[in-house]
Amino acid sequence: MKNAILFTTFNLLFQVAFYNCNAHKCNLIGNWTNELGSNMTIDKPTPGTNFNGFYFTAVTVQNGTVIQKSLLYGAENVQHSDQPVFGFVVNWSFTESISDFVGQCFVDGEGVEKLETMWLLRAKADSSGDNWKATRVGSNLFFRPNK
Amino acid sequence: MKNAILFTTFNLLFQVAFYNCNAHKCNLIGNWTNELGSNMTIDKPTPGTNFNGFYFTAVTVQNGTVIQKSLLYGAENVQHSDQPVFGFVVNWSFTESISDFVGQCFVDGEGVEKLETMWLLRAKADSSGDNWKATRVGSNLFFRPNK
Amino acid sequence: MKNAILFTTFNLLFQVAFYNCNAHKCNLIGNWTNELGSNMTIDKPTPGTNFNGFYFTAVTVQNGTVIQKSLLYGAENVQHSDQPVFGFVVNWSFTESISDFVGQCFVDGEGVEKLETMWLLRAKADSSGDNWKATRVGSNLFFRPNK
Amino acid sequence: MKNAILFTTFNLLFQVAFYNCNAHKCNLIGNWTNELGSNMTIDKPTPGTNFNGFYFTAVTVQNGTVIQKSLLYGAENVQHSDQPVFGFVVNWSFTESISDFVGQCFVDGEGVEKLETMWLLRAKADSSGDNWKATRVGSNLFFRPNK
Repeated sequence: MKNAILFTTFNLLFQVAFYNCNAHKCNLIGNWTNELGSNMTIDKPTPGTNFNGFYFTAVTVQNGTVIQKSLLYGAENVQHSDQPVFGFVVNWSFTESISDFVGQCFVDGEGVEKLETMWLLRAKADSSGDNWKATRVGSNLFFRPNK
Repeated sequence: MKNAILFTTFNLLFQVAFYNCNAHKCNLIGNWTNELGSNMTIDKPTPGTNFNGFYFTAVTVQNGTVIQKSLLYGAENVQHSDQPVFGFVVNWSFTESISDFVGQCFVDGEGVEKLETMWLLRAKADSSGDNWKATRVGSNLFFRPNK
Repeated sequence: MKNAILFTTFNLLFQVAFYNCNAHKCNLIGNWTNELGSNMTIDKPTPGTNFNGFYFTAVTVQNGTVIQKSLLYGAENVQHSDQPVFGFVVNWSFTESISDFVGQCFVDGEGVEKLETMWLLRAKADSSGDNWKATRVGSNLFFRPNK
Repeated sequence: MKNAILFTTFNLLFQVAFYNCNAHKCNLIGNWTNELGSNMTIDKPTPGTNFNGFYFTAVTVQNGTVIQKSLLYGAENVQHSDQPVFGFVVNWSFTESISDFVGQCFVDGEGVEKLETMWLLRAKADSSGDNWKATRVGSNLFFRPNK
């Protein structure tokens, strides 16, 4: 009888552990691509909830601009959340503008990850009087790139 | 004659130096307060265009939430611009949300600085189906606090 | 005794009526001006919660554009609310763009009215591929113009 | 010879007319459905660039709200543009909120129409102090519903 209880307990613990190993968690780190063909890489060498990375946009406001890789800096809200909320800044290296993204990392039943984001794109205004027209808004959906 | 040229040259250099000392440049570093009574401090120990700091909000979406100081991470676009474009992420320490600000530092003829910003506030959605309603938008004007 | 009751009743009715006359209600109809110097007039000849009007902007995205009066169409959410939520579309007559404002009419203890609004400004994109950069966002505060 | 020129001219005119008849123009009028399953109908009984219609949302901010059909009012910027910019207000009949959409009607080489939109959703704030958190932002893509 004692053994039976012990066995059931171990079995239960094993199943819980097994379930957790297979639970789908959305992980920000790695490569992402969006519906416009822009690519980004989120690294995470920093401790805590911060991260760094690179953004390689496929599109620009001014056609003809030579696009260069730009640095991104951000944070996720709760480090071990399954579907973390995050935000990051992209400091454009080739134009006097800054983009800000906020979003959430979602994962479906098959473990497929996506980032649903909204962004603000701030251009430089010549003066405070032109400030009203300096901010664009939009949304982007990021997927893991096809290998 | 030689001395006259030397004198003129020194005088010119002096005037240029003097002008630069008095030129109005908007500087992100230090304390700021906005029209809602929220306070923030932008430090800049990091090299390059990155900065860190603290944000102490005066307002919350859910009334009754205990507000705590939260970390901010950001970047200014061009380090030595007189009216730099910037962006930063505030990682709320007391709620599962993230805010993103973009803006520009303006300085008027009297050297009075202000930050004209727009922000996105991202809450956690329970699922991808609730993603559509997770993002708020707004604007804030920051001034140097009264000593 | 009968008269005393009658008097009290009339007195009460009078006080209620008087209170209502002085109650501060925010009224969308009439002239408004904002912090950029733009002016608008909200008419309300239409039945229900709809309204029409005119918007005369003081600012344009492209400097040098000849500004003309443009029509606005909108609705307030609840017709007899003291601080109604509203939205309206401005169909720019001089440029291939549309603006949308949402906001609320607030009134303070002294009966001073203001409209706190946020807006989207949509420009024409040459193609769906340029759609991402066609929307600007901002905020405006409207007051009653000084007579 | 004269006849040959005449014939060529007529042929050319015919081809131009024929091409125009088959040119793909994006038409706002009719039924639309978006990625959230919301449906709308744009009628156009009004003269000029104005339109009315109905919006039947599939989603609400407060779960459990009984959704009802709501009226929409809007305008397209240039009446006979092939890919018109438009904006409309949805006056929610079941909640004290207003939505504003701006967007553009795009049509591809096969004549398939879509509406790429961004919106603001304004809730009622109890007071001006709560105004900052009353505006949500998002995007929606509308397609012609499957018959």
